[in-house]
Amino acid sequence: MPAVTKADIRPEAEYDVVIVGAGPAGCMADLCLTTFGFKVLHIDNRPTTTEAGRADGIQPRTLEVLRNIHAVPYEEGKAGLAKRMINQGVRVQEVSFWDPTEDKELARTSRAPSCPDFIDVEDPYTLLLHQGLIERSFLDEIEARRAHLPADKKAPAPHGNVFRPYEFETCSTDASNSQYPVSATFHHADTKEQLTVRAKYLLGVDGARSLVRRAISGGQVGDGEWQGKIRMLGDASDIIWGVMDVEVKTDFPDIMSKCLIHSRSSGSIMVIPRENAPTGQPLVRLYVQLQSDAGPDGKQQHYGRDASEDICKERARKIFAPFKLEFGHTAWFSVYQIGQRIASNYTLDQRIFLGGDATHTHSPKAGQGMNISMLDMYSLAWKLNMVEKGIADPSILLPTYEQERKGVAEELLKFDKFYSTLFSGRSPQSDQLTADATKAKAKGAVDPELFIETFKKNAFFTSGCGAVYFANCLNALPESDLVQKYHKKGVFSPEGTKLVIGQRLLPGKVTRAVDANRVRIQQEVKMNGAFRIHVLAGDHATAQPTLKAWDQFLDSSASFVNLYRPRSGVKSAIVFNDHESRHIEPERGTREPNYNPFFDFLYVFANAHTEWDIEDLPYNVRIYREHIYADDQFDRRVGKDVKASLHAKYGVSTEKGGIVVVRPDGYVGAVVPFNQDGFEALNAYFAGFLTGSQKASL
Amino acid sequence: MPAVTKADIRPEAEYDVVIVGAGPAGCMADLCLTTFGFKVLHIDNRPTTTEAGRADGIQPRTLEVLRNIHAVPYEEGKAGLAKRMINQGVRVQEVSFWDPTEDKELARTSRAPSCPDFIDVEDPYTLLLHQGLIERSFLDEIEARRAHLPADKKAPAPHGNVFRPYEFETCSTDASNSQYPVSATFHHADTKEQLTVRAKYLLGVDGARSLVRRAISGGQVGDGEWQGKIRMLGDASDIIWGVMDVEVKTDFPDIMSKCLIHSRSSGSIMVIPRENAPTGQPLVRLYVQLQSDAGPDGKQQHYGRDASEDICKERARKIFAPFKLEFGHTAWFSVYQIGQRIASNYTLDQRIFLGGDATHTHSPKAGQGMNISMLDMYSLAWKLNMVEKGIADPSILLPTYEQERKGVAEELLKFDKFYSTLFSGRSPQSDQLTADATKAKAKGAVDPELFIETFKKNAFFTSGCGAVYFANCLNALPESDLVQKYHKKGVFSPEGTKLVIGQRLLPGKVTRAVDANRVRIQQEVKMNGAFRIHVLAGDHATAQPTLKAWDQFLDSSASFVNLYRPRSGVKSAIVFNDHESRHIEPERGTREPNYNPFFDFLYVFANAHTEWDIEDLPYNVRIYREHIYADDQFDRRVGKDVKASLHAKYGVSTEKGGIVVVRPDGYVGAVVPFNQDGFEALNAYFAGFLTGSQKASL
Repeated sequence: MPAVTKADIRPEAEYDVVIVGAGPAGCMADLCLTTFGFKVLHIDNRPTTTEAGRADGIQPRTLEVLRNIHAVPYEEGKAGLAKRMINQGVRVQEVSFWDPTEDKELARTSRAPSCPDFIDVEDPYTLLLHQGLIERSFLDEIEARRAHLPADKKAPAPHGNVFRPYEFETCSTDASNSQYPVSATFHHADTKEQLTVRAKYLLGVDGARSLVRRAISGGQVGDGEWQGKIRMLGDASDIIWGVMDVEVKTDFPDIMSKCLIHSRSSGSIMVIPRENAPTGQPLVRLYVQLQSDAGPDGKQQHYGRDASEDICKERARKIFAPFKLEFGHTAWFSVYQIGQRIASNYTLDQRIFLGGDATHTHSPKAGQGMNISMLDMYSLAWKLNMVEKGIADPSILLPTYEQERKGVAEELLKFDKFYSTLFSGRSPQSDQLTADATKAKAKGAVDPELFIETFKKNAFFTSGCGAVYFANCLNALPESDLVQKYHKKGVFSPEGTKLVIGQRLLPGKVTRAVDANRVRIQQEVKMNGAFRIHVLAGDHATAQPTLKAWDQFLDSSASFVNLYRPRSGVKSAIVFNDHESRHIEPERGTREPNYNPFFDFLYVFANAHTEWDIEDLPYNVRIYREHIYADDQFDRRVGKDVKASLHAKYGVSTEKGGIVVVRPDGYVGAVVPFNQDGFEALNAYFAGFLTGSQKASL
Repeated sequence: MPAVTKADIRPEAEYDVVIVGAGPAGCMADLCLTTFGFKVLHIDNRPTTTEAGRADGIQPRTLEVLRNIHAVPYEEGKAGLAKRMINQGVRVQEVSFWDPTEDKELARTSRAPSCPDFIDVEDPYTLLLHQGLIERSFLDEIEARRAHLPADKKAPAPHGNVFRPYEFETCSTDASNSQYPVSATFHHADTKEQLTVRAKYLLGVDGARSLVRRAISGGQVGDGEWQGKIRMLGDASDIIWGVMDVEVKTDFPDIMSKCLIHSRSSGSIMVIPRENAPTGQPLVRLYVQLQSDAGPDGKQQHYGRDASEDICKERARKIFAPFKLEFGHTAWFSVYQIGQRIASNYTLDQRIFLGGDATHTHSPKAGQGMNISMLDMYSLAWKLNMVEKGIADPSILLPTYEQERKGVAEELLKFDKFYSTLFSGRSPQSDQLTADATKAKAKGAVDPELFIETFKKNAFFTSGCGAVYFANCLNALPESDLVQKYHKKGVFSPEGTKLVIGQRLLPGKVTRAVDANRVRIQQEVKMNGAFRIHVLAGDHATAQPTLKAWDQFLDSSASFVNLYRPRSGVKSAIVFNDHESRHIEPERGTREPNYNPFFDFLYVFANAHTEWDIEDLPYNVRIYREHIYADDQFDRRVGKDVKASLHAKYGVSTEKGGIVVVRPDGYVGAVVPFNQDGFEALNAYFAGFLTGSQKASL
């Protein structure tokens, strides 16, 4: 038994949150909640982190989120979450399609970019590295953040806060216990010692065969997971695939690319390049369709889940023919069955939540599962934080978790069904995506229009950027109650707005005035649990009267900043203080800066930073001096001829300005004009889900 | 005494190279030589790495070099050299000039970009982090590379290969000892145990008061360093500056920027932002001119080198007035005297070499010393490698070290004199660099034309990109002997060429065909001791006959690839094998790929990679399959309307193609046409300094 499995440190009796499962989703939950200052108990039934294989693809939107989570300085020389993964992984920027042709047993029939250029992201690729590297990056970062927890939130725990190996037994809620309504029982897998802890919340991210799901669904072991209150909807297919991370030597030209290979009669393979093995040898992941030759009765037979590695390799060699395929060391081998299933509910009582594979299972080949699972927890964590800090109404905010994330999972399953079908048939003709259409046609490709549309839509979804949220209290879309019933028309998403509510903020570069650094606006506020109010003030001179009115609005007791404040004693939304500065603010009577930890403000002017001075801005603006920018950077997607690229990209006029509200998870919640109408609309937006006491002394 | 100073591990008796001094220059030497497989003894008289302060600015060209050195995978989660430093440091992208004006005691009179846009670099900023972080990044990377050394080159050593604290005593050369002509004596600073080791080379990078320099110059302790064969030319001035890394609070608006502040009568300050202290507090570096108030005789008095921290802080407060300046913790404080001195020789016998501060000292304020010092060693190491591997003539190649690097140091001293003068006078008016000239003039600025020219020239130099080399055997400039005497005119740097021989290769993005990754061409071959032959083949179809001729040329016994090979037994120029691949090359009789470890080949076609296939290229081309590219990426500096941006930027016609020879240190050595004339010119170029036995069996 390895040393780490020893039950040296025992969990305490009470926690804010219990997390069951320490895969990527559980790690994300732990990281976010620790950052928000929660006391977290995290258990997993595996003795160590993943050692090889499993999930391996990080999509552009997930990388954007990981970059936004950022890093707290820890061990010298260790990179933070996103950079560490990027340093270790390999990038897939293209997909090749290989099929039998008239004159060749196997030929490259088309290619398509993995993340087409129309998707506006910082990292236009899928990053591949194995799940263990991902988990360990999280655990190191969690450990670093635990150092910042206040004493009453920091319980002793192993490195990275995960207690292993602990088997979950059951959990329940008792509404009469107002402080710790949740009770959870589990036992140490080796010593069998049983423990019961109490908590405010429990998160079940313990995978496709979730024991938490079974516990709350009311089902019993043996009666099927679909018998209780929470049902897994959908079916497993009878198609079996083998998957292996393996060293290969081959004369197949595209072995360094992602490939979809369809053989004439031996089935299909997906090739995924992988980061080097610890030995330094390059690995390749192969998804191999396990289809047996015709049986004695003439029918095609499928291998069962007991198909061996050798059968899988033999099949791979047949599909690759006429190319040679030599195998070296196998780092990981597994067999799985395709299916698409989704949980009927993500929670029953807003105390015990499910997420990740516990709520959605599907084919692994699109590289979506881990991404959507991590983002489930990323999406839930800030909502729990707002509720627990006393600024949001739980009965309004918490149901948006299931509503938003189940919607995304449903899209995922639809996509996965399409993708699986695509993969079992012939590959599409898509080199017209990189060359021009005429040439593609000349090569005998099918008419590309339809396929491009289909491909685009799916690429947008698989990049993670297409995980869109629908109208609710957080997303002031035209069809939302808020906007429908609002007394003035045309205030939300005013004419010209190009940002889409319920989608992530589009990236763009600006110049930070305080140090003239060229920075990415969407990464300027790191994950801190706060709403990000982007004031695109437009032209500096024109904006002066409105800035003055805005300053007064922010000071008034009737503004959202002062109406909605966390319960007393809460000075920060996270465990680091992000308003420390080396700057002495010119005094203004005896007033302190009017910071509200749940709102962060960014100001962007259309003019170069050399044309104005931070010191001349109104008080409530200049106290955010490190978040004041000039919109004077070149953006390829906007073009050289347009001044103020970010204003243009967001569809905000430089004459009028505009305010973009971005939720703590990076989604655009509302766009309003930069004028008194807009200020009032912000109040109305936040009134929809925030509560909290007004600041005492204004 | 800290544990690390214990003389647990004793140096052995014989090494390939002894390095004296483990500052950034010594670390660079160790890193490069270890990569090249040398057995290195590295000593330093300090008990640990730098703990605070000292050099702190890494310039764009140095970052380019550090990126090129790359990383070998070592401890999980640790970033490589360049990324690690970038993760830890802060970026200076602008300089502000503050002066007294008619109506203000101190006002921002102008601004200028730290690295103006006309300089074509990946990292257009100065990266600031303290010397200890830099040294430790190097030591970790050296340790990782030592793991790859063959047994006979790997002597036991402390982490990072530096023996501490060892005091150098003396060294000498004895030509009669053909294997180990160098002898060096030193002693352990604590135990006083004396050691004498023998080596092939000794590198003295032991700082401004170099004991190695004294030993080989023939001077004696006490008779002044300028009495021997190597003299330090130049003078120290009597101007004293204090420098401190300190936590401050201030209402000075530009504290996050680099600033040059001239007060009316209290002297000058340079403000340099710094990375956060280990405490998390932001640090600032202040260079403070220590000028006393007028003495009783009415004359201005300067403080001596004994000026205290308090005097320095008091002076700083006066210069900052009317802004407030409150001091927190001081991380580092020192006092220095401005001077510009350069060594008359860098070596006497091509066995013992000097570099870094041992050869050039000057004001630290331009952030040049450490950069040029590191690059001294970067420049020397590959030359030693070629000589020791038996492929280059030492009597031709080694003298180019002093010739090239002394030239750069002379430029540095000229610049430093200019810069020091600038800094002691009033600041230039330069907001015209970021705004337009008319506006600047309207604000009362002086005529900008002259200043911009001067500023540009210096920014080019201080970025490191302006460290240009002159005509010699390595740099086939028009005025070089090679080109002057060459039998055909117009072959070297053919008409249209935009790359400048003796300057670094300009960066550019291309698409790597093998995996469709968008990559930076200048970073595609990592430091491996080899010449990089960039074949810009132009249009794929047009290039076919020339590619065939090139393939035959590379096979012929009269081509440089076969004429100049290392001594037998040398299979690689570095300790990693960089030709490992997962690809099985289609067989071609019994022939092995014709790799020569001292030449690397890159192929760039003007057409998208979807329009051609690696498999259809000639054998000698396609064996470099991971270095075959499409020139189809957008380059802002070339524009949207030009196809094949890299061809255009380098001035290579897509109809004719061209060959760009880049030296192992990233400098352009020669540009020739992609035709038979060009092939012969390559032979002539390499004949100028390479030797080595022809490959036995061709």
